[in-house]
Amino acid sequence: MAEKLQHVLSVKQLMDVVLLQDLFETAWEFERDEVERKQRMRLSGRIMASMFYEPSTRTRFSFEAAMQRLGGGVLTAENAVDNSSSAKGESISDTARIIGGYADVIVMRHFQKGAVREAASNSPVPVINAGDGAGEHPTQALLDTYTIRKELHRLHGLRVAVVGDLKNGRTVHSLLPLLSLFPGLHVTLIAPPSLRLPQEICAELQERGVVLHETEEFSVTTLGEADVVYMTRVQQERFASVEEYEAVKSVYVLTEEIADQLKEEAIILHALPRLEELPAGVDRNLRAAYFKQAKNGLYVRMALLAYLLE
Amino acid sequence: MAEKLQHVLSVKQLMDVVLLQDLFETAWEFERDEVERKQRMRLSGRIMASMFYEPSTRTRFSFEAAMQRLGGGVLTAENAVDNSSSAKGESISDTARIIGGYADVIVMRHFQKGAVREAASNSPVPVINAGDGAGEHPTQALLDTYTIRKELHRLHGLRVAVVGDLKNGRTVHSLLPLLSLFPGLHVTLIAPPSLRLPQEICAELQERGVVLHETEEFSVTTLGEADVVYMTRVQQERFASVEEYEAVKSVYVLTEEIADQLKEEAIILHALPRLEELPAGVDRNLRAAYFKQAKNGLYVRMALLAYLLE
Amino acid sequence: MAEKLQHVLSVKQLMDVVLLQDLFETAWEFERDEVERKQRMRLSGRIMASMFYEPSTRTRFSFEAAMQRLGGGVLTAENAVDNSSSAKGESISDTARIIGGYADVIVMRHFQKGAVREAASNSPVPVINAGDGAGEHPTQALLDTYTIRKELHRLHGLRVAVVGDLKNGRTVHSLLPLLSLFPGLHVTLIAPPSLRLPQEICAELQERGVVLHETEEFSVTTLGEADVVYMTRVQQERFASVEEYEAVKSVYVLTEEIADQLKEEAIILHALPRLEELPAGVDRNLRAAYFKQAKNGLYVRMALLAYLLE
Repeated sequence: MAEKLQHVLSVKQLMDVVLLQDLFETAWEFERDEVERKQRMRLSGRIMASMFYEPSTRTRFSFEAAMQRLGGGVLTAENAVDNSSSAKGESISDTARIIGGYADVIVMRHFQKGAVREAASNSPVPVINAGDGAGEHPTQALLDTYTIRKELHRLHGLRVAVVGDLKNGRTVHSLLPLLSLFPGLHVTLIAPPSLRLPQEICAELQERGVVLHETEEFSVTTLGEADVVYMTRVQQERFASVEEYEAVKSVYVLTEEIADQLKEEAIILHALPRLEELPAGVDRNLRAAYFKQAKNGLYVRMALLAYLLE
Repeated sequence: MAEKLQHVLSVKQLMDVVLLQDLFETAWEFERDEVERKQRMRLSGRIMASMFYEPSTRTRFSFEAAMQRLGGGVLTAENAVDNSSSAKGESISDTARIIGGYADVIVMRHFQKGAVREAASNSPVPVINAGDGAGEHPTQALLDTYTIRKELHRLHGLRVAVVGDLKNGRTVHSLLPLLSLFPGLHVTLIAPPSLRLPQEICAELQERGVVLHETEEFSVTTLGEADVVYMTRVQQERFASVEEYEAVKSVYVLTEEIADQLKEEAIILHALPRLEELPAGVDRNLRAAYFKQAKNGLYVRMALLAYLLE
Repeated sequence: MAEKLQHVLSVKQLMDVVLLQDLFETAWEFERDEVERKQRMRLSGRIMASMFYEPSTRTRFSFEAAMQRLGGGVLTAENAVDNSSSAKGESISDTARIIGGYADVIVMRHFQKGAVREAASNSPVPVINAGDGAGEHPTQALLDTYTIRKELHRLHGLRVAVVGDLKNGRTVHSLLPLLSLFPGLHVTLIAPPSLRLPQEICAELQERGVVLHETEEFSVTTLGEADVVYMTRVQQERFASVEEYEAVKSVYVLTEEIADQLKEEAIILHALPRLEELPAGVDRNLRAAYFKQAKNGLYVRMALLAYLLE
């Protein structure tokens, strides 16, 4: 096994089958634990600092609940950009160094790509990237992969369809490389021409042996073979005109009708929040796994915190 | 006794004498407990999420202190509206469902009437309404009633004067129905013509046997028989003109002089924050019970959390 | 020893050698404790409320980490001014009285000088001033003094150079009186003419036997004898024109070259955040003690909380 991770900044650091196995086993242990309402105090006396320079109540709560369920304490800045020394012009590297004197681990979200890496460069304690703008969100890829593993009982030989905004969605950019660790991956990329997966990611995946199939068509034809249908939000601000947005928006919608025609054992994922691309009616479909996926974030983050702090 | 409450959304759900008795006894137990500095860990390992879509440091702190005094942990969003997925257009029902995967109970304040009920509709864990716009604030009515019970040692045969903005104040709208559970309630409604208690609430109270007396006059004459004088804030934005506001504002003021002439055993309540309607000089009056009332919120919320989570 | 402090509002209350000794010994104990990863639960079951009416993630985290490392719980308002009852016109004295019903100690930062003192006037629990506008920040002076004591092993016979904005910096205004408790203090005041230390503070220090030397010159000549070089931020908004600011800003910079020529045993302090007056290159200099200084805030605040709550 590779050297123990110090910080978690990029999904590249997680591309290690043994590490994943290790984390997933711990996560699964925590999950069963909760069912039994047993209480773990593995991180009692330890403190996590949440530094969110961009809003995300959900991701913040997921990390903070994880830390507290392990017995640890939490310092929280839900809107660090307005309220911190950064307003006085301090470098983020100084901030992390000082906060690292108070806390045992820092979870940071930042609107700027690279900012979390800069914070980590000088931090005396582990820094976890909870999303850095157009950059990465490695723990999201981790919990997505954990969810697939749990629901389908395997990670090899997967047929995955990813749908929507493949150009800007950092979720997909992190998930596909992570899944490519496992042999036999087939990916169907379903997106409008203006939102296709960037060429360098395609190339990287193909180099790693992934079979890619690109299409604009969102239908049972292109989805019917998928084990995993991964929906993403298509955001208006990515389009040149409202008309173009409206046209695309109405096409990439996983209706109840389409959901019913997926393979019986298929699962539907979405990083949430969702808009019209995933109607609430689909929630009743047994293939809908996105709320479980969100909840899995708790266990995976517990596993990651335990890994980093023990 | 009725079925155990799942969510606490409306004071209607609390209109159950046995339930009230049960909650008040637990609250009283917690209160004595604190005096003895004993520590309870009844909710150790459990987590409460505060989702405040509207500012209220006081109510938030009251709930969070209650949870922590029971040994539980807290996730907090002091300004969820700016910082959450709601900014991305997510339904509040989705939000509650996901947060309910991280926390064991959700306390929600929202600026929109009905939003908390919608959140509860899909939540896997109990949701407590901490105020939903012009809607309700059931735990305030609960702590008001608890305070009256503690200070006057009875809830039957009460003479209550409610003063100020009876039209918009959700506090009064929730409190009076709750008190009407107990026989012999006489209520004097003291308000300017434009801020009278809505007719449907009057009718409901009368149907339940409450004797109502409406007047504009705020004086010893109308207050002299009251066991409870419940003052409310008169807010400028409720008036058509500044002049009208100024005229009313200066009338509905409980001066030290008036306070001195109340019945000796009477108590003065106010949900706070107060403005000019309740001068600081009254704080020295033995009838002033509004700071005790605020503190009682702690014990009542402890009792409610213990009830919902055990 | 003097009467036990109830609130901590001004550095004047800390000007007591026995009290300082007591606090510093406790702080040092906590510091060693952490090294050994032993856990203290001295404040288990107690709750601290952070009321920040002005942004300061760092100071807030420092207090909140201190409370949690002692086993206590935390209520936090990172932006009380937008989110609290103060928006509804409530007096800060009412706010403190009510919050004091939920928490065992209140830590308050406010943008207005005197506001924290007003809050304390009516609070049932200790209030700690975490900075009140142009007023004071007593715990900063405490941790500065603790750092000097720890790094130089003495507080008597100190030669201290304070540099930059001596007019507006509340840090320096609090620190120098506190150091003047100890005999043999020599202070070199290095500032541009428009930012000199206020005359009344100079007079007070001289009355207490401090030898003062004022100069505009920032160089090895004026710094060479100093045991402690205390740098401060020079903020643009203090100057009449951008030109004046730029001129001053480039003069009062502790370059690596100057740092190298200080006395070997000298230490460099800064309350942080820093701007250009203290280049990152100096961090490698063994005399740089400002990150240790920030971390010491944790232990000193732990000591203060334990002192106030036990």
